[in-house]
Amino acid sequence: MAIIVQKFGGTSVANIERIKHVASLVKEEINRGNQVVVVVSAMSGKTNELVEWTNAVSDLTSHDSLKEYDSIVASGEQVTAGLLALTLQTNGLKARSWLGWQLGFKTDTTHSKARIEHIDRDAIISSLNDGYVAVIAGFQGITEENRIATLGRGGSDTSAVALAAALGAYQCDIYTDVDGIYTTDPRVVPKARRLNKIAYEEMLEMASLGAKVLQIRSVEMAMKHNVRVRVLSSFEPGEGTLLVDEEEVVERRLVTGVTYNRNEDQITLTGVPNTPGVAANIFAPLTEKEINVDMIVQNVSQSGDYTDITFTIPKADTKLAIEQLEAVKNNLGYNSLMVNENVAKVSVIGVGMRSHAGLAQKMFQTLADKSINILVITTSEIKISILIDEEYVELALRALHSAYGLDATKES
Amino acid sequence: MAIIVQKFGGTSVANIERIKHVASLVKEEINRGNQVVVVVSAMSGKTNELVEWTNAVSDLTSHDSLKEYDSIVASGEQVTAGLLALTLQTNGLKARSWLGWQLGFKTDTTHSKARIEHIDRDAIISSLNDGYVAVIAGFQGITEENRIATLGRGGSDTSAVALAAALGAYQCDIYTDVDGIYTTDPRVVPKARRLNKIAYEEMLEMASLGAKVLQIRSVEMAMKHNVRVRVLSSFEPGEGTLLVDEEEVVERRLVTGVTYNRNEDQITLTGVPNTPGVAANIFAPLTEKEINVDMIVQNVSQSGDYTDITFTIPKADTKLAIEQLEAVKNNLGYNSLMVNENVAKVSVIGVGMRSHAGLAQKMFQTLADKSINILVITTSEIKISILIDEEYVELALRALHSAYGLDATKES
Repeated sequence: MAIIVQKFGGTSVANIERIKHVASLVKEEINRGNQVVVVVSAMSGKTNELVEWTNAVSDLTSHDSLKEYDSIVASGEQVTAGLLALTLQTNGLKARSWLGWQLGFKTDTTHSKARIEHIDRDAIISSLNDGYVAVIAGFQGITEENRIATLGRGGSDTSAVALAAALGAYQCDIYTDVDGIYTTDPRVVPKARRLNKIAYEEMLEMASLGAKVLQIRSVEMAMKHNVRVRVLSSFEPGEGTLLVDEEEVVERRLVTGVTYNRNEDQITLTGVPNTPGVAANIFAPLTEKEINVDMIVQNVSQSGDYTDITFTIPKADTKLAIEQLEAVKNNLGYNSLMVNENVAKVSVIGVGMRSHAGLAQKMFQTLADKSINILVITTSEIKISILIDEEYVELALRALHSAYGLDATKES
Repeated sequence: MAIIVQKFGGTSVANIERIKHVASLVKEEINRGNQVVVVVSAMSGKTNELVEWTNAVSDLTSHDSLKEYDSIVASGEQVTAGLLALTLQTNGLKARSWLGWQLGFKTDTTHSKARIEHIDRDAIISSLNDGYVAVIAGFQGITEENRIATLGRGGSDTSAVALAAALGAYQCDIYTDVDGIYTTDPRVVPKARRLNKIAYEEMLEMASLGAKVLQIRSVEMAMKHNVRVRVLSSFEPGEGTLLVDEEEVVERRLVTGVTYNRNEDQITLTGVPNTPGVAANIFAPLTEKEINVDMIVQNVSQSGDYTDITFTIPKADTKLAIEQLEAVKNNLGYNSLMVNENVAKVSVIGVGMRSHAGLAQKMFQTLADKSINILVITTSEIKISILIDEEYVELALRALHSAYGLDATKES
């Protein structure tokens, strides 16, 4: 008898009607002869409401305050878990809810973004063997101090994958409000296709670049423990997209997807003295404020004495970054600081890149054909990212999607 | 250093502004040099919302379903406890929340109306000695099965009194939306007076007869453990009413209060054969359905062969009671069953009755003077209750309040 983990996000359990529908999906899985572990999020909107209340009474900077924050926000999943267990009972199944502290879902003490340390499997396995569906409150665990800790927004995905790994589940089905992972954003590119399979590494790049279907940590954990993860819709039937090991992606292709991100600004420092350690000096004051620097390019000027440094950072951090850099301007000795807010990053992703040359050239040629100017280029083993003027982003996405042969055919 | 337990009900923590006000009341107590344990209810309306959701998915009849019910509804207090702890921290105090399972608030497994078995005091005491305010989620405990159990509606009062007993607190202050216990309902009798002190036993009678300020179990527990309980308003300053041992009520008086209850129906069975065991036979089918029978009167007819039996039951149970009694009509052999829905019970309460005769006579004379007919009379050591036609209830209340010298004087 195989264990299946099913995870349902906030929109899937948004109200009583949706919870009843979820119960029917659980029952289908039971009827297939599987043991089922269900992980649930809070009803959509509930976590936001709770977070707003905490913000109304605290700046949430102290460790003690984050312990309270966690205890408060974890209550949302507690409610959904109980309601789903009740609904399953009403449908004639044996079911019980499990909170993080009840099942021994142990985390470190990094409250509000805790990391999982260990999951006790015995109690759950014993309950499953007694014929119970285990309905688990996602997002939450317990610290060695006996306090509730939460895993950060989207943490229920990570709860589900970690449970699947700990329980040796056959598969972890993540039910959400989209029917799978697409080659690109279908709202921008109508010819976007749902992928049947995607490699963990590709999904990591997709997730971090803007396809916000799964929490990144859940993908990392799935990759680490080789958990088969399926992303599918709780609203409409369908096979969804299976996240698997690279070798399991049978249908070989060079490029898996094209993503974009409009949430970064480009900052350029000109006339920076070209001396050893200058890059470190520039980025130290940003790191100090936990500003994530993304794309970085350094151009050496002809003289060789001065250089220009360009990088991108999240829009939300731009003001702070400027303050930090202006405060050390004399020390760094740069000439000017320029901010470009009208940029977008477009990335082409695929494990196929490892073994195929010429994919970058195709990207540059495709954009050149559309007269799209490239501001910055960065590459990794399985992706090429370029920064372009924001107003060309839809055009670039469609052109690249076609150029790499990702467009849906009429049949598909 | 004395320990003070402060309990705040749902209206006292109804929103962020109210919670901030509660924090100021806690801080005042700290500034008086006391160690403070705060017990909170759910924000008003929250428990009802949660209960409605459980009713939408379950009939809540099985033991398993009540375990889920408890886990769901206990989340309301979890939120308030965290929010108040955060607010206290923001006000410069050290504070932490405690959930039932964290502090070792152990109950039996009678889910949804569990009884307290034991409270671990060590962790709380240690935390208080470290300078922390203990903010405790009321209404909830943990069973030997590691499941959350709740104490029934109004259970936070009982949580507070039980904690005060377990921790050896100097006093348990129950903050609510009224400023104390009154001689009678001020909405009916404008001359009603707030009592400075009331004996536990009197409060038990007041509470069970309709003055719904405190959960009855909390008063029983206070009496058993001799906990000083003060009922006061969180909305306006004032001394409130102190519940104390009978001996501590210095200001002697014969009658403490007059209460009424409109929520019962009168049922009369006529022509019941007057044989041994007949009363038992009548009430057995009611007890079977957990219908609480209140006032009972049996009149022997002149012949002695037949009797009439009259009793009162909660209005909500009348339909069920009639079904039960009609089902056994042939067996009991009664003549007719009559229901009177237009009745009200009025009670006069006071520990002074123990040592004074003539108090009942004053009641009967007062009602006679107003031409109010008495349907049923029952008495106990410290109370006299009469059943009258419902439309006379306000008149009776005002007349008795005056007759027993309870009216407020102009000065008070």
